[in-house]
Amino acid sequence: MYIIIVGAGDIGQPLIDIATRSGNEVVVIENDPERADRAAGEYDCLILEDDATDHNALQDAGIERADALISTTDRDATNIMVCLLAQEHAVPNIVSVVHDPEHMNVFRQIGVNTMENPQELIAEYLYRAVARPAIVDYMRIGEQAEVFEIEVTENAPIAEKTLIEAAEEDLLSEDVLIVAIEREGEDPPVTPRGNTRIEADDLLTVYSAFGAEPELTDVFGHPEDRIQ
Amino acid sequence: MYIIIVGAGDIGQPLIDIATRSGNEVVVIENDPERADRAAGEYDCLILEDDATDHNALQDAGIERADALISTTDRDATNIMVCLLAQEHAVPNIVSVVHDPEHMNVFRQIGVNTMENPQELIAEYLYRAVARPAIVDYMRIGEQAEVFEIEVTENAPIAEKTLIEAAEEDLLSEDVLIVAIEREGEDPPVTPRGNTRIEADDLLTVYSAFGAEPELTDVFGHPEDRIQ
Amino acid sequence: MYIIIVGAGDIGQPLIDIATRSGNEVVVIENDPERADRAAGEYDCLILEDDATDHNALQDAGIERADALISTTDRDATNIMVCLLAQEHAVPNIVSVVHDPEHMNVFRQIGVNTMENPQELIAEYLYRAVARPAIVDYMRIGEQAEVFEIEVTENAPIAEKTLIEAAEEDLLSEDVLIVAIEREGEDPPVTPRGNTRIEADDLLTVYSAFGAEPELTDVFGHPEDRIQ
Amino acid sequence: MYIIIVGAGDIGQPLIDIATRSGNEVVVIENDPERADRAAGEYDCLILEDDATDHNALQDAGIERADALISTTDRDATNIMVCLLAQEHAVPNIVSVVHDPEHMNVFRQIGVNTMENPQELIAEYLYRAVARPAIVDYMRIGEQAEVFEIEVTENAPIAEKTLIEAAEEDLLSEDVLIVAIEREGEDPPVTPRGNTRIEADDLLTVYSAFGAEPELTDVFGHPEDRIQ
Amino acid sequence: MYIIIVGAGDIGQPLIDIATRSGNEVVVIENDPERADRAAGEYDCLILEDDATDHNALQDAGIERADALISTTDRDATNIMVCLLAQEHAVPNIVSVVHDPEHMNVFRQIGVNTMENPQELIAEYLYRAVARPAIVDYMRIGEQAEVFEIEVTENAPIAEKTLIEAAEEDLLSEDVLIVAIEREGEDPPVTPRGNTRIEADDLLTVYSAFGAEPELTDVFGHPEDRIQ
Amino acid sequence: MYIIIVGAGDIGQPLIDIATRSGNEVVVIENDPERADRAAGEYDCLILEDDATDHNALQDAGIERADALISTTDRDATNIMVCLLAQEHAVPNIVSVVHDPEHMNVFRQIGVNTMENPQELIAEYLYRAVARPAIVDYMRIGEQAEVFEIEVTENAPIAEKTLIEAAEEDLLSEDVLIVAIEREGEDPPVTPRGNTRIEADDLLTVYSAFGAEPELTDVFGHPEDRIQ
Amino acid sequence: MYIIIVGAGDIGQPLIDIATRSGNEVVVIENDPERADRAAGEYDCLILEDDATDHNALQDAGIERADALISTTDRDATNIMVCLLAQEHAVPNIVSVVHDPEHMNVFRQIGVNTMENPQELIAEYLYRAVARPAIVDYMRIGEQAEVFEIEVTENAPIAEKTLIEAAEEDLLSEDVLIVAIEREGEDPPVTPRGNTRIEADDLLTVYSAFGAEPELTDVFGHPEDRIQ
Amino acid sequence: MYIIIVGAGDIGQPLIDIATRSGNEVVVIENDPERADRAAGEYDCLILEDDATDHNALQDAGIERADALISTTDRDATNIMVCLLAQEHAVPNIVSVVHDPEHMNVFRQIGVNTMENPQELIAEYLYRAVARPAIVDYMRIGEQAEVFEIEVTENAPIAEKTLIEAAEEDLLSEDVLIVAIEREGEDPPVTPRGNTRIEADDLLTVYSAFGAEPELTDVFGHPEDRIQ
Repeated sequence: MYIIIVGAGDIGQPLIDIATRSGNEVVVIENDPERADRAAGEYDCLILEDDATDHNALQDAGIERADALISTTDRDATNIMVCLLAQEHAVPNIVSVVHDPEHMNVFRQIGVNTMENPQELIAEYLYRAVARPAIVDYMRIGEQAEVFEIEVTENAPIAEKTLIEAAEEDLLSEDVLIVAIEREGEDPPVTPRGNTRIEADDLLTVYSAFGAEPELTDVFGHPEDRIQ
Repeated sequence: MYIIIVGAGDIGQPLIDIATRSGNEVVVIENDPERADRAAGEYDCLILEDDATDHNALQDAGIERADALISTTDRDATNIMVCLLAQEHAVPNIVSVVHDPEHMNVFRQIGVNTMENPQELIAEYLYRAVARPAIVDYMRIGEQAEVFEIEVTENAPIAEKTLIEAAEEDLLSEDVLIVAIEREGEDPPVTPRGNTRIEADDLLTVYSAFGAEPELTDVFGHPEDRIQ
Repeated sequence: MYIIIVGAGDIGQPLIDIATRSGNEVVVIENDPERADRAAGEYDCLILEDDATDHNALQDAGIERADALISTTDRDATNIMVCLLAQEHAVPNIVSVVHDPEHMNVFRQIGVNTMENPQELIAEYLYRAVARPAIVDYMRIGEQAEVFEIEVTENAPIAEKTLIEAAEEDLLSEDVLIVAIEREGEDPPVTPRGNTRIEADDLLTVYSAFGAEPELTDVFGHPEDRIQ
Repeated sequence: MYIIIVGAGDIGQPLIDIATRSGNEVVVIENDPERADRAAGEYDCLILEDDATDHNALQDAGIERADALISTTDRDATNIMVCLLAQEHAVPNIVSVVHDPEHMNVFRQIGVNTMENPQELIAEYLYRAVARPAIVDYMRIGEQAEVFEIEVTENAPIAEKTLIEAAEEDLLSEDVLIVAIEREGEDPPVTPRGNTRIEADDLLTVYSAFGAEPELTDVFGHPEDRIQ
Repeated sequence: MYIIIVGAGDIGQPLIDIATRSGNEVVVIENDPERADRAAGEYDCLILEDDATDHNALQDAGIERADALISTTDRDATNIMVCLLAQEHAVPNIVSVVHDPEHMNVFRQIGVNTMENPQELIAEYLYRAVARPAIVDYMRIGEQAEVFEIEVTENAPIAEKTLIEAAEEDLLSEDVLIVAIEREGEDPPVTPRGNTRIEADDLLTVYSAFGAEPELTDVFGHPEDRIQ
Repeated sequence: MYIIIVGAGDIGQPLIDIATRSGNEVVVIENDPERADRAAGEYDCLILEDDATDHNALQDAGIERADALISTTDRDATNIMVCLLAQEHAVPNIVSVVHDPEHMNVFRQIGVNTMENPQELIAEYLYRAVARPAIVDYMRIGEQAEVFEIEVTENAPIAEKTLIEAAEEDLLSEDVLIVAIEREGEDPPVTPRGNTRIEADDLLTVYSAFGAEPELTDVFGHPEDRIQ
Repeated sequence: MYIIIVGAGDIGQPLIDIATRSGNEVVVIENDPERADRAAGEYDCLILEDDATDHNALQDAGIERADALISTTDRDATNIMVCLLAQEHAVPNIVSVVHDPEHMNVFRQIGVNTMENPQELIAEYLYRAVARPAIVDYMRIGEQAEVFEIEVTENAPIAEKTLIEAAEEDLLSEDVLIVAIEREGEDPPVTPRGNTRIEADDLLTVYSAFGAEPELTDVFGHPEDRIQ
Repeated sequence: MYIIIVGAGDIGQPLIDIATRSGNEVVVIENDPERADRAAGEYDCLILEDDATDHNALQDAGIERADALISTTDRDATNIMVCLLAQEHAVPNIVSVVHDPEHMNVFRQIGVNTMENPQELIAEYLYRAVARPAIVDYMRIGEQAEVFEIEVTENAPIAEKTLIEAAEEDLLSEDVLIVAIEREGEDPPVTPRGNTRIEADDLLTVYSAFGAEPELTDVFGHPEDRIQ
């Protein structure tokens, strides 16, 4: 893909890194000379030190043939202007960071894909690390359901049991599904069957229709892992 | 919980928001007067305008009885000093943002939970939105495996088929598991059985031991969704 | 009318002045404390020191019941964000200054009335003052036609002639129309008839389908008034 | 003409543009290095990065043979000093922007042509766009009279009528004159006669001895176009 | 006198001091808050923190009844604008510092008394202190002539001689006049007669039609006092 | 002479000008890069961009063989340090500007010639220009006595009188001496004798043991020239 | 004592702390508002926010009755000016920090006690910590001799020997003197006699006429403690 | 030794000086371009202008083979991060300046040698110079004991006495030891015996188990040398 990335700041920099490493042709527009210089020294792509709300800058960046434009500046107003100009040039795929959640609607209205409130995403992860330290990673499904990774402790109720046994003992309800088991020496993760035995130190990927509730995390041996 | 949050910047702010809304007792230490003021006006918690590497500030924040401390400043050196001081006061749960991945080891060495490279997380999401627009959300499991959400298009090979039919037609290999189905009018998501029929517009939660490869996303009707 | 004016800078200030003196209810949003203070001291209206791209600021300004919003900041990106937010609230009349002519299209696309390139307007007037000093004021009609005010000198070919005489002597072609005559002691201006006699020192309002060309201005006695 | 332009700021820039495009020989004096650089890159003329109140700068700019000098800096004090120095060198045509209306007299006293309060001009236009949106452009003649452009709506009282009919029906008083009609496909604008028929979508240039009053604009189908 | 002093900087401050101590009514206009504050704390007069090129400031300062206005800012452009505004109000006595000697003419043209290049005056004094250290003070009369103060050394040719003897010995030519003799215990200075005897340590006020040339200063015992 | 000048600011610049034009060998030490550059471009002498309180800078400036050092920075503390270092190197002639009059004693104590309060000198001149506009220039002799230049007006009591007549009419007391007469066409100034006739427009150099009192200035036709 | 401390910076602050805790009456003069505020909040003494080179500030600080003045600002020029003013007021004891070693002589010349190059003192300590880590503290006596503190290791040659035995075995030459022995449980340190036995873990205060040479430190068991 | 010095500021600079002059191989890491430049010009060692908390900078500095690292920046947080990274690379000898005494424990915890509060050391010296001016230098031994240098005055009780006489007269108690005598013409210092005679102007190195108390300093002739 031919991707134009606007902004080489905190978010723009790792994005350039990913996009170039994935083999795309990348052009970056960054207004700040210092940031532009730094990016030019680090990434293997064209860096334009220019204002991306300026038509010429976009032209120089090859907007006519871009497959995608991602706007990552820390000003929503700049991002929206850039996105509107990209629409004028019919860029097929336009994505933007949005900092103020109240601006989400405006971006949606003009038809731009957005990533709302990136810092909130981080904040939620940090909070989780404190509030439910046993949950290694997680993903929300709809309102309540969740997929999450959790480690099995030595004395956990489920330790040394097969899934069938766990179900029989009502440790796992119907709303819960053990999706995958990461276990040392096994790659890819084990796909569990009814007679698969859960062991201590297993890192389980669990789906729960009602989220990672204390009753559930207790099963894996983390009674203390609750928001008090 | 009694939580001390250090830094009320881009990450600190939404974190304060989550932590207070979740019913915790929160104290914030922020050195910058402007940020401290803003936070004081917005969140219902104690804001100390002070340098968190200063012993007195931590004392004022009640470090002796804190259940957790989360350090979110944008300087790794400040974060590590804060974490070391928190350890001196035996705070049970210490988490820190780390900006330079090369510093991860140092934090680990002294036993602090970290969140590496938050901007990289965002960058990856943005890139995904451009590279594989059909993937709504995703979570990595180990090196290759992935859980992801994807919408079924009208003419998708899997549309209007039961899971058993899909398996019979080799649309879904053994390494793939349909974990949940979000469907309008259903809450919580449908837990799929063998005879559950996949419909267009279903939002599927899929586990794949080898990630969201093109061969797999094609099954849900997104042949164009590939990184070129 | 209930008018929200965004920006109390070089253009915003006289605008506030006009709008308040014309008996409208005016609310101003200005981010810069100094400018906000100055405006508050000078004009009889509500001044909000706030960022107009912030939803709350617009709410505070009464956007729900505004008849019009005029965005006058010196950043096009800010102006467009403000206009988009105003559209979300269905403000009936939205006008914006646009600084970069290349941005005109974007504003038009989203349906905002604009005033293109205000400084260019001034520049043109200044240039006119030097290039054609006899032209007091003027207005373009389409591509070429112009209405302009010009003073009749003592020895001008047209001086002391009636319009009929002037036409007979081919001083005024069919494409030229004397629209009004400002003459000392006459108010409103004299509406010329065929037998109205043009006098020296008359200030004529002239329409010319081909603009204020030298051949035409010569008729009013300004042979030197040409761009060399 | 040989023109010296002092200042390459917001007003100076479009002025340089007009003056060079009109085929004049232009020299610009701008003190600010950044602005001077920008201007040097964009316009085809000599740019001196210097203080125009410095004699040498004016000498370098060729003040001895200048036909005109236009001072456009945003400080009235600087403008007047420049104008006085230009007078010392007997520049035939000296024009200056004046920002503070109270300074107009001082400029007049020393015999400099001025453009008063350029921002006020813009403000008035913006206000008009909101207060009387149907008026596309306009020009004041003396105290009350006005020439203005207005579009005819489909159901306007004057639509589909000849000027004679309109006069007979008292739609147009004696103080009103239709000066020109811009109509798609016609260039230059149509010069109206008594039997010219006004059509919907015509853009009329109208002279009114008493300005664009609601009674008059109603005739063209804009009853709502009133300052409330 | 009622005096308006514009500027309370390096020159303005001692001027305020002199003017107030001499019993005048003084009003000061100073734009810089810090300087205005300092002046307000030190001098017994009204200090207006305002821009003196602003009409209202001058009005507030009582320009209508001022006997004199002295403009001391460090920008010639500001000084000239202030002087022009003062002329508009017919202030009888207007004086200004002028920093750039090339601007002298402009000030003269508009009829303002000026003090040219004050720093040059100081520089000359400093240079004199090094180049001719024996000369305590001096004043130029026309191109060459000078009045100067010089001390008589013990072994000076003129020491212990009457003026008549000095003239007879050709120590003093016709172009030289001993104007006054400051001598300890004598106040006012001694007015010399022909038989007045010059003594060592006398401080003489000398007039010389050809300046303080080495041949002359040698007479008072300063052979080394020469510019080499 | 070999002169080191410290500081190329407001006072330093004209001093460099005088010192170089008088044929001395001059070295300048100026810490500020911008000022150093400006001086280097304008004066024909060595400019060291350095801190003059640094030993090496003085060494580089050739302090060992300097005949004189003049310190003109705007900080008394810097000036005194420079002077002390110059004394260490036995510079024969050391002069310094002193800004705070209270510091005079300290400079005197260590044996440095000073020029007190240069701005006060200027202030006094400016004040004189307003308070006694007829006095063109003047010099104080001791406490009260003064030498001053004054122009004779047409109707002055002394006009058209010889000095003898003036003395006889008691216009000039014994404490007053006409030192020299500048008269158009005469150069050097006329040395007055008893029968020299004073004429209108003569510019007189006058010595008065009791200063330029109103009774005295009245004699030359300036009754209005009084401090009220 | 009544002590005036000039400067409340890095050095001034701990000095104020020591001086006030030792029961002196302390007045501090600090020009920087922030530092003055901080000091005022922390120390129990009068803090004047003022420029110490200003006579009034010194007067306000009670210079007339001060027993001592210590100047600690980071500018030597300021320190010397302050010291000179203190001398004018005959302060009995004047001490100053000196930053540039080349300025030492100037301070000495005017008779001020100085502390040369404080940062060098720290640097030397830091270097010692790296170069000879066994030396806990030390003090130079003249050029070569040193008093130093060193710990005795378990296997040190001198361990478990009396001083007489150590002398007999030539472990300690005549130029070395064990001055005191810090030993757990003993306070004050043990004054060693000939039959005092040195034990491992003793912290010895040693005098050596030739410094802490490797041959000597080896005796105490630190063969590795050498600068390589 | 191969030493890495972090920071080339007030403390870093003399440290670089000592370390290079002692023949070590030194590499300096300094983030500030100006300081890095200055150091590069003055010291004979490699200066890296880089952030020492950045892994690459340490690698470039050769951390793998460093014998020691000394961190001298003025931020404790930076110093601790640098020390932790140095530990990761197993640098054998790590020393750091610590500014906030409350941070001492954290450094100790992680096993870094520190130099506490360097400015306090200087402050103490300065205070001593004022409080006990006779004490030239001193070193604390434990809580109370001290070694100090003091000059013998002409009329001191101990002057012209042998040590035995001094002991007999109870001038020196058992807790006091004369360690060395610096005397003009003697190098190294005289090692005192019982019959060594103390002379005026001798500079004695004295050990006192109870410190330099007034009773003791009186013996050497400094009765006035007391903290009042």
